[in-house]
Amino acid sequence: MKFSYISHLYCPKCSSTYDANIINQLCECGSPLLVTYDLPALAKNWKRSDLIGRRNDLWRYHELLPVQKEENVVSMGEGMTPLVAMKALGEHMGISQLYMKDEGIIPTGTFKARGAAVGISKAQELGIKELAMPTNGNAGAAWSLYASRSGIMSTIVMPVDAPKITRNECASSGANLYLVDGVISDAGKIVAQAVKDYNLFDVSTLKEPYRIEGKKTMGIEIVEQLQWEVPDVILYPTGGGVGLIGIYKALKELQALGWIEEKMPRLVAVQSEGCAPIVKAWEEQKTESEFWNDSETIAFGINVPKALGDFLVLNAVYETGGCAVSVNDTAVIEEQKQISQKEGAFICPEGAAAFLAARQLRNEGWIKENETVVVLNTGAGIKYPDTVDVNVPILNKHETITDRSNVTSF
Amino acid sequence: MKFSYISHLYCPKCSSTYDANIINQLCECGSPLLVTYDLPALAKNWKRSDLIGRRNDLWRYHELLPVQKEENVVSMGEGMTPLVAMKALGEHMGISQLYMKDEGIIPTGTFKARGAAVGISKAQELGIKELAMPTNGNAGAAWSLYASRSGIMSTIVMPVDAPKITRNECASSGANLYLVDGVISDAGKIVAQAVKDYNLFDVSTLKEPYRIEGKKTMGIEIVEQLQWEVPDVILYPTGGGVGLIGIYKALKELQALGWIEEKMPRLVAVQSEGCAPIVKAWEEQKTESEFWNDSETIAFGINVPKALGDFLVLNAVYETGGCAVSVNDTAVIEEQKQISQKEGAFICPEGAAAFLAARQLRNEGWIKENETVVVLNTGAGIKYPDTVDVNVPILNKHETITDRSNVTSF
Repeated sequence: MKFSYISHLYCPKCSSTYDANIINQLCECGSPLLVTYDLPALAKNWKRSDLIGRRNDLWRYHELLPVQKEENVVSMGEGMTPLVAMKALGEHMGISQLYMKDEGIIPTGTFKARGAAVGISKAQELGIKELAMPTNGNAGAAWSLYASRSGIMSTIVMPVDAPKITRNECASSGANLYLVDGVISDAGKIVAQAVKDYNLFDVSTLKEPYRIEGKKTMGIEIVEQLQWEVPDVILYPTGGGVGLIGIYKALKELQALGWIEEKMPRLVAVQSEGCAPIVKAWEEQKTESEFWNDSETIAFGINVPKALGDFLVLNAVYETGGCAVSVNDTAVIEEQKQISQKEGAFICPEGAAAFLAARQLRNEGWIKENETVVVLNTGAGIKYPDTVDVNVPILNKHETITDRSNVTSF
Repeated sequence: MKFSYISHLYCPKCSSTYDANIINQLCECGSPLLVTYDLPALAKNWKRSDLIGRRNDLWRYHELLPVQKEENVVSMGEGMTPLVAMKALGEHMGISQLYMKDEGIIPTGTFKARGAAVGISKAQELGIKELAMPTNGNAGAAWSLYASRSGIMSTIVMPVDAPKITRNECASSGANLYLVDGVISDAGKIVAQAVKDYNLFDVSTLKEPYRIEGKKTMGIEIVEQLQWEVPDVILYPTGGGVGLIGIYKALKELQALGWIEEKMPRLVAVQSEGCAPIVKAWEEQKTESEFWNDSETIAFGINVPKALGDFLVLNAVYETGGCAVSVNDTAVIEEQKQISQKEGAFICPEGAAAFLAARQLRNEGWIKENETVVVLNTGAGIKYPDTVDVNVPILNKHETITDRSNVTSF
């Protein structure tokens, strides 16, 4: 048995292939590259039951990950996040089998840890010494911290307005951190120049092929946690869309291994009304999105006006009979509150957006009452404390509680 | 097989026993009550191998937990947090087998989730409708959120100065939340009065017997994750000390089950120089601590001037040949930085304090080079973003990166 059954890289746009043993970024045609595995060989050698008793993180699927030598794995126990039954919220929505895949329960507090763990491990295997990326916060935090663990230097550029906690995480890692008085695309331009000037490995979203391999493990875990039953619907808050592309890729790979049947979940790309390029493209039945001007949403992580992998997101949505939905920021905050009060889960606005989309699709009848619905919560609410506006009574030391109807407002 | 082998409650001070099927708070003598299980029956019916394939959270040990009916379990997948090898840091300290039990990777971001999950589940089983507690932040966040999930109402009182993120978590849960212009003991007095006035269940630290049962699972997990080998040393940042008491209790129970041998880890209680009542008592070889006046430390969670369970903490330290150590706040921040930069783990100051204690004990020769050392990191660093003082260069949109020696300071 090999540790990894990686075969080569291929371009989903022009079908060129690339050697996976050397450093690659984008295809010559400008498309992201994807990883191919030797699935026929793996199907013979690897059974679902081989997973029993394995380590309880995403590396349990190492045969289907790109790292070829176990000693190159850089891990802090990321993955196998809880799949939490959301009974009370489901009753409120009229969905009998509602689950949250809770990506807040992971190092660095967001799903970005998956891409970083696999991306950094492979970067180490390829001999990378220094990398660079622009970030809206959480990806930079995850990549700079995993880079520190591996001994790789990182250069991170983020907008001044990115969440302060993520700035502190990057700083604590010892990264070369820079703020830019602008937005993520301005950070991207500075990184692109630095990549040229200093010959750095560019780990911007989808500009290297391995982040998506980490993200895809969300899809494998969901079906393993459902005892290899594929859910009817998976909703995913979509910025760059790497997780959705990854989940689709993972499920196709599991089909090729014979681990799941033909049924695919309907994949739903959830965006904000203030930044909905994928939704617009889907409504117009296009295969690519257009740049969304003056994008704005409280859900910082899905403020991506034009995703490099938009055509892959749209393809996954079309191929699975899914859809793309936009939601309103004010209603997102209300949904976040419902989830805390009904389920005890203080989740991030991006996750709340995906739950709200489930509610809308149930109201429209697109989701049926008895369908199994999995919502991705991409991060912990504690990373965005300022989305909660708190108004709490202050007592002096000698006061007693007299007004107990005074339930805290949110 | 029963779901739980709980037998009754007992007082570790005066040896009185209590019925576990009714609501109890403290013993009549004022001591906390502890849970007893029918260990002889359990030893016959339950083997280590029964755990294989079980759910990957603390409920995998349900036989040794107090909840008798599975339907009363209130869970968000808490437990089985990663045991992370800290190779680079260990080399720096001269400890060859250094591990972090990372309690940041859990719902609500701290180990308080364990006590809350088990405590709330048992409260639900006992028919509790409303509870109250004072908190320095993290316990209130965990208990109010788990209470929401179960449908139990909660009244939480916390100091105005408690971390803002935890205030927001409590508020989001829909709790009756009050701030007090004072410290935790002032909050405690207000809660005590409210408990009397409104007949609430008091879930202050150790005032109900079940929080410790949740916390003890840290000890079971550590030895299961080390393939049932007991480490040489476990270091624990000690405020109320519930986790340390719980780990000791768990290991004694595992011995009674025959799951581990006679060897116990040396348990180390770590405190801050600004609040070190347990350390003082240990240095004076006393069995109880004295109230520590004007306590102060950046490690908010271990700012506890007098713990109700101090005699149990000290007993566990004495019985295992452990010790109690205090550390300096400034050096804690430096240790936190080392851990981020060497291991990629942005941990809380309490956890960093425990790592610093390991470093000190290694320097003194109390810890030997080849010993297996487990440090409890009790929470995620992202819950305390303000312990990191960040000074980052700001670029304008059209600048390029010219000064790459400018590694971020912390």
